[in-house]
Amino acid sequence: MVGHQAVEAALERRRDPVNQGLAEAVPAVIPGRLQGATQHLLEAGGKRLRPTMLLLSAEALAELDFETASYRQMPAVDGDTVDVLSAGVSIEFVQTFTLVHDDLIDNDDVRRGAPSVHREYDTSMAILAGDVLYARAFEVLLQTGASPERALRAVGRLASACTEICEGQSVDIAFEHHQSATVEEYLDMIDRKTAVLFATSACLPAILLGHDDAVEPLAEYGRDVGRAFQIHDDLLDLTTPTETLGKQRGSDLIEGKQTLVTTHAREQGVDIDGLLDGATAGSVSNEEIDRAVETLAEAGSLEFARDRARKFVENGKRHLDVLPDGEPRRLLAGTADYLVEREY
Amino acid sequence: MVGHQAVEAALERRRDPVNQGLAEAVPAVIPGRLQGATQHLLEAGGKRLRPTMLLLSAEALAELDFETASYRQMPAVDGDTVDVLSAGVSIEFVQTFTLVHDDLIDNDDVRRGAPSVHREYDTSMAILAGDVLYARAFEVLLQTGASPERALRAVGRLASACTEICEGQSVDIAFEHHQSATVEEYLDMIDRKTAVLFATSACLPAILLGHDDAVEPLAEYGRDVGRAFQIHDDLLDLTTPTETLGKQRGSDLIEGKQTLVTTHAREQGVDIDGLLDGATAGSVSNEEIDRAVETLAEAGSLEFARDRARKFVENGKRHLDVLPDGEPRRLLAGTADYLVEREY
Repeated sequence: MVGHQAVEAALERRRDPVNQGLAEAVPAVIPGRLQGATQHLLEAGGKRLRPTMLLLSAEALAELDFETASYRQMPAVDGDTVDVLSAGVSIEFVQTFTLVHDDLIDNDDVRRGAPSVHREYDTSMAILAGDVLYARAFEVLLQTGASPERALRAVGRLASACTEICEGQSVDIAFEHHQSATVEEYLDMIDRKTAVLFATSACLPAILLGHDDAVEPLAEYGRDVGRAFQIHDDLLDLTTPTETLGKQRGSDLIEGKQTLVTTHAREQGVDIDGLLDGATAGSVSNEEIDRAVETLAEAGSLEFARDRARKFVENGKRHLDVLPDGEPRRLLAGTADYLVEREY
Repeated sequence: MVGHQAVEAALERRRDPVNQGLAEAVPAVIPGRLQGATQHLLEAGGKRLRPTMLLLSAEALAELDFETASYRQMPAVDGDTVDVLSAGVSIEFVQTFTLVHDDLIDNDDVRRGAPSVHREYDTSMAILAGDVLYARAFEVLLQTGASPERALRAVGRLASACTEICEGQSVDIAFEHHQSATVEEYLDMIDRKTAVLFATSACLPAILLGHDDAVEPLAEYGRDVGRAFQIHDDLLDLTTPTETLGKQRGSDLIEGKQTLVTTHAREQGVDIDGLLDGATAGSVSNEEIDRAVETLAEAGSLEFARDRARKFVENGKRHLDVLPDGEPRRLLAGTADYLVEREY
């Protein structure tokens, strides 16, 4: 069992190589404004959870750790070396591209404490910055030096993940217009919108390094962790103070977004649409949100969501049995726990 | 020498397999509205120039023609067969994705005689439809059955083409704000925005079928044809009647878009910004546009652009020497001629 401090330290120390990889992978030749728009969100920071999960997965498979691993030259099963950092960069490019386009779609003004790309620049630059990160994600993934068979499989996995993410985002938008998603429909949506990229992050090193038997178990681990991550994110929106959250607490309720909490509560007969009827982010009081959250708690919906998140984490961790025992595997398990227990 | 009628007939008869390939490659599982948004522009028609160029290139390399070729099973140099139709579909998906996003960026209401995707649906669906076509382009390109080495090279070529297209579009947007592009800057912009996808279309079959020596010559052919195509498109905007064009003649001038004609004229001292000062698409008269076009003609700019387009075509055709003689090669040469002589 690895404590949260150890997990946070592990995430923290892997952020530097990831950030360096990101900086090296954004070509300086892009015309001026697009260059800035492309780098804007990347430079605004972020936890780099997905590439870090990818690096930990590679460390576990190669039986190395942060001190001994060279991410640009990780040993594959056949003696070749593979640049798994490029795969991590590719994943973060995809994640960033989806955030840039999602912020535009949702008209969100702030991301990672900075203005969103379409606010800092404009709509055109946000569309193009997303598009160029998308293309770069594939270009960078082709630079790992893995064998053609493995590289091709990795590209296929990334491409189908991208298709699924778009589909998931589309379903999420549909949910905002039709307030009738069931718990199962919601879980299917986050599988595509969120979990698939975690799954891809966790399994890409197994593909690239040639550990074929570990590919699907690691994908399952990542998928379960991604599901739990999204559910926990939705819970934090209800329970974390606005100051800590960096955005209005209860914003999902105000905006009428579906979450596991609200879909469950609706199935329990709670009038979700009436909870904060007519409230806007500017006008709603802490007390109103407290009352709404209290109603959801009384319906058992917060506990239901917490329970599902914990179950996903437990299930996900079981798939780690495929990995050799050691510090990286313990950190992957610890990361899963951490993601559903973090307070922001 | 192949006449225009023969070229039009060749384009026409290859449109059916392309359209069928497109229909088969859009998965029916995408959630409802996104499915419609994704298919909207694809179903609005289009000449399918790029995939047709790709099919002709494959026919030439394999020494087959429309009657004898099976596009799903084209013979590679080593005896394998390759589904080049999937590569053509991939190219058309990329082309369609860029049109969907460009229409949103340029706020264009009509495309291929139908409402643009963001008009028929909305901004969110246009962003996501573009994004999903983007991902599908890579997924489909992985389904050709080519050897991993060749498939990987093809994917790399497509990814870097996508990056270049975004860069080119970004430069084009910058040109609309700063009216000072030189002829060389303009040509560099259309290289990236337009010509690179023609280059990719022409050379992908050489990559996939293993004709390594033909890759770069065919890319050069495609690039030159793409340049000429774009320049001719800009000329048509000035010279083709509004009714034939399907949009306001002179719209590039009205919107202050840079073209080879205007960049040349500015270098000759013509006050481009004053040509149609204050005119809007609704208010401008045919006579005003005639006078503006006359000024451009007197500066030698129309002839300059026609001449450059013709030179690109002649240069491009020379690269076809790498191909075996036969009907497909003659059609590729004829297509190049046709694209700078068509009247709409």
